[in-house]
Order: sequence, then structure tokens, then C-alpha cells
Amino acid sequence: MAEGEPRKKKLIIDTDPGIDDAMAIFVALQSPEVEVIGLTTIYGNVYTTLATRNALHLLEVAGRTDIPVAEGSHFTITNGTKLRIADFVHGADGLGNQNFPPPNGKAIEQSAAAFLVDQASKYPGEITLVALGPLTNIALAIQLDPAFTKNIGKIVILGGAFAVNGNVNPAAEANIFGDPDSADIVFTSGADILAVGINVTHQVLFTDADREKLAASNGKLAQYLCKILDVYYSYHFDAYNIKDGAVRVQTSGITRGLTILYNKQKRFEEVTEWTDKPTVKVAVTVDAPEVVKLVMDRLMSL
Amino acid sequence: MAEGEPRKKKLIIDTDPGIDDAMAIFVALQSPEVEVIGLTTIYGNVYTTLATRNALHLLEVAGRTDIPVAEGSHFTITNGTKLRIADFVHGADGLGNQNFPPPNGKAIEQSAAAFLVDQASKYPGEITLVALGPLTNIALAIQLDPAFTKNIGKIVILGGAFAVNGNVNPAAEANIFGDPDSADIVFTSGADILAVGINVTHQVLFTDADREKLAASNGKLAQYLCKILDVYYSYHFDAYNIKDGAVRVQTSGITRGLTILYNKQKRFEEVTEWTDKPTVKVAVTVDAPEVVKLVMDRLMSL
Repeated sequence: MAEGEPRKKKLIIDTDPGIDDAMAIFVALQSPEVEVIGLTTIYGNVYTTLATRNALHLLEVAGRTDIPVAEGSHFTITNGTKLRIADFVHGADGLGNQNFPPPNGKAIEQSAAAFLVDQASKYPGEITLVALGPLTNIALAIQLDPAFTKNIGKIVILGGAFAVNGNVNPAAEANIFGDPDSADIVFTSGADILAVGINVTHQVLFTDADREKLAASNGKLAQYLCKILDVYYSYHFDAYNIKDGAVRVQTSGITRGLTILYNKQKRFEEVTEWTDKPTVKVAVTVDAPEVVKLVMDRLMSL
Repeated sequence: MAEGEPRKKKLIIDTDPGIDDAMAIFVALQSPEVEVIGLTTIYGNVYTTLATRNALHLLEVAGRTDIPVAEGSHFTITNGTKLRIADFVHGADGLGNQNFPPPNGKAIEQSAAAFLVDQASKYPGEITLVALGPLTNIALAIQLDPAFTKNIGKIVILGGAFAVNGNVNPAAEANIFGDPDSADIVFTSGADILAVGINVTHQVLFTDADREKLAASNGKLAQYLCKILDVYYSYHFDAYNIKDGAVRVQTSGITRGLTILYNKQKRFEEVTEWTDKPTVKVAVTVDAPEVVKLVMDRLMSL
């Protein structure tokens, strides 16, 4: 790094690729502000085994086999619920049924949770962990090492439906619904958390025109993505406004997976389940055109 | 009734008075569009026994002892939870600790649920039931008579927190929280329902100036109310915009009492707990100045 250059932010992406995750990973790899130091895998769009295979494959497509992949949990943290896999959205292979060859590389020996704990303790306060699937690996890392929530710099969670209907049912968003117990552990852990829920991501629309622009570019990643994607939604971590307050997750009943932000605009007479819980940040608005532009630019840059 | 006069809407008010309910009852009694044909009582602001005493007392203040009061349930429908009584809001007597004498009248022999069933079958489709407390009596009426949901014309529910924090905790509004099981029975019963939640009622602010105007009036009810009320919030059933969709209530866990409206803007891949549930109407906006004006006018009219 040349002197005077701003230091790159270290990024670990916890991911279940998935077409949307493929796009997010490519954008991160082409973003000069960040250095991706690892991918950890999780079930969600696909089962964990396939998520690992797809993560390795995507790094090979991008020519970044230097980045380690650590395989994550195959089950929810309580192991009490059937996994909900969204292959009806992403195809049976998670990448649009393109019959890509298996990757040459392999996941590292360390589990995702162990890798997260290790890296956070190696670079205390420096890592941004971006969680794109159910939060099992992160809850396991918190349970594995009480210092993890302090050591990890920041956790950005793609998840939740704040004051809007969910996408699994009217209450719950898919990533939180995938493992509500883990989500409640993470949200109440005291880590520096920013939640970006579907109330924000659904404001960022990727249009046919954007897609045609990608198709017309000579970029390798853009060409790859055009193979696997149909019209879809994306998101980004900048260009938003936030509220902050305690977030709790309902772990049972018909609203299992529901995220409730207590935004502190009201005082309650009694002690509630939100009282004395740590504050997290929740994105509430987004500059959608800016996000689409940034994503497009970066996807066409390789 | 003179020929050509519009027929008055028959109203039954299910109530837990409570200062806010006292105001609502007085406004209804002074509203030419409606004929109050009964009050049914329920716990909430006070225990049911005191709610009955206060309902009788308020009718005596208003000179309307012709209106019957039917005492309602003393317990939640499952009888599984401790009652949550809001005497910290309304005073130990529920009416601002004014040491009013006991009423002369008595409740009728019929229970609230039996009275509701009876009246709905006597005037099929003609009654508007306004529910100002937990929904136990109404759920009991539904269980008592399968035809009740058809016979009752309309149920207006003061309850729920739709896409905003609650007032018991960040998830739940007090009337729903008071008996979530009954609330879920009522919301999914198929009756013609309009829910007016705190997302709407908190838009209608009763100011110091309004209060001074009441105090300066010679109206009997206005003078009475000025004795018992402090600055507070009110609500009304007109002058609103609505959304419609299925409403379910979470009956357990940290979001017990939460109301989730599925507003049908999104389709889900899977069958959800909201699928095939009847549609109800939920108020989303309100013309607050109009409501305050109407309430003030009627409270000063006797």
C-alpha cells in the first residue's frame, strides 16, 4: 500500500451463494475500499455444502483463489427446525442452473465460527463482517469466544423486516427466519451491528436497462452475472439513513423470525424484553440510484 | 323517529372505563348518528368489577340509566395469564381518584357474551360493536354462537400497533396484549372488522387549549370530564384511511400481543399462517383536527 493511501477495510463475507450473494461477492472484490480476507459459508439459498462449493467457484471465476473459504454450520443453532432452502429462487445449484464445473479449490480445515474468532482476535476492531445468510456461524462464534463481540469491528446484517411485511410470511424475513435463535443471540450480543432489512433493500431496484448495460460490458464478472441472473433486487451498505435501538427476534409462534426494533421514541411503564439490551443500528432509507450506479460500475470493472 | 330521518346506527360499547373510555362513552351518547343500546364491561384499565361499577356510574352522570350494562369476563379466555391492569394510568378507581359515590343501578343478569349474542341475533347486521378493551367478551360470543360473526354488523377494535412500536412493550399494544388469544380468535373470525391501532390514535392529540375550552363550557359532561382527565390522547372512528388484509396476533414469546397485518402487497412462495384468513380493515391515517373538533363539540353539548 502506498503511503498516504487510506487503509482498506478488512471484510469477511458470511454467505450462502445464491445469485444475489454472487453479485455481492463480486462487488466486494472489485471495491477498492475493502480487502476481502475470507468467505464463510452457511445454508440459506442452498445447503451449506453447496454454498461452500459455490463460494470456491465464484472466487475462481474472479481469479481470487488467494481468499480462504471456511465452511459453516449445516444446521440451526438449536438444530430444532427443518432448514428452509430457497432453491426455488436460485435454481437447484444456487447459481441459475448453469452446470458450472466443480471448483478446483477446497475449504480450509477451520470451521467458519473458528475462522471468525481467529481473524477477529488477529485484527481486533479492524474487520467488518458482512452476513448475507442466517446468523448461525456468528452466534456460534459469539458462544465460542466471549471476546468475539469486542474483537470484531462491525457486523453488517442483511436481514430483518422493520415495520414492513417480511418475505417468508407477513412477519419474517428469510435470513432471520432461517435461524431466529441465532439472530436473537447476535442482535443482543453487544457487537457493533448495522441491520439492513428488506424495508431498505426493496427500495433498490435493478432494472432491465441496468441488466442490458451489464450484458453490453466486456467485464468478465458482468458477463458471468448475466448468465446467472434474472431481474432482481440488490443492496449496499452505504448511502442509507439509520435509526438505532434494541432489536429482539421472536423465536417461536406464528411470528417466528420477526425482528422488532425498539426505537426509543417511547418510554414504557414496565421492564420489557428490550430493556437494557444493547443498541444496534438499523438502516431505514437508502439512496437507491447511487447504490445501483456503484454496483454497476464495479461489476463492469474486471 | 321522524320520517325521512336517517336511521340511527345501533352501538354496543365493550369497555373498561378508564378515563379514555369515559370520554368515548360520553361522545357516543351525544352523537346523533348512533343509538347506544348497551355497554358490556371488561378488565383492562381496571378489573372487570370496577369497570361495571364505572360504566353504571357514567350512565348515571349522563342521565342514561335506560341503557343496560352487562358484566363481562373477569379473566383472559385461556385464563392462563395474569391480568395486566393499567391503574397507574387511570387511578385506583379508574376515574382519576375522584371518590365518586357508588352507582344506584346494577348490571343486568346476562353476561356480556350472552348479551352480545342476543342483541346481534335480535338486530342481525344492524349493530356496530365498539371494543375499547381486551377482546375476551367478543371471542366468548364467537365461541357461544357460530352465527355471531354474521349477525353482528361490524366490530370496531381499538387495538393493535401496526408497523409502529406498541405501548406495553416495543411489540404489543395494551388491549391486544391483555388477551392475545382472544384477539387472534376475533381477527380471524370472518366478522366485518375495522382495527384502529395506536399508529392512528397517537396522531390525535388533545391539547391544553382543548382542555381549557372544555373547562370553560357549561356542558355537564365537559365539566365532569375536566374533573377526571389530565392531558391525554383520544381517537375516533371516522376521518381515516384504511388498508385491508389478514391480521394475526402472536400469542406467545417476547412479541406476545403483536398484531401483524398482511397487506397483500406481496405474494409468498409458501402457505403462511395468514393464508386464507379473512380480511379485516386497519386504519392507517386520520384527520386529527377534525376528530378533536367533533369530540369537543359533542362533549360540550349536554
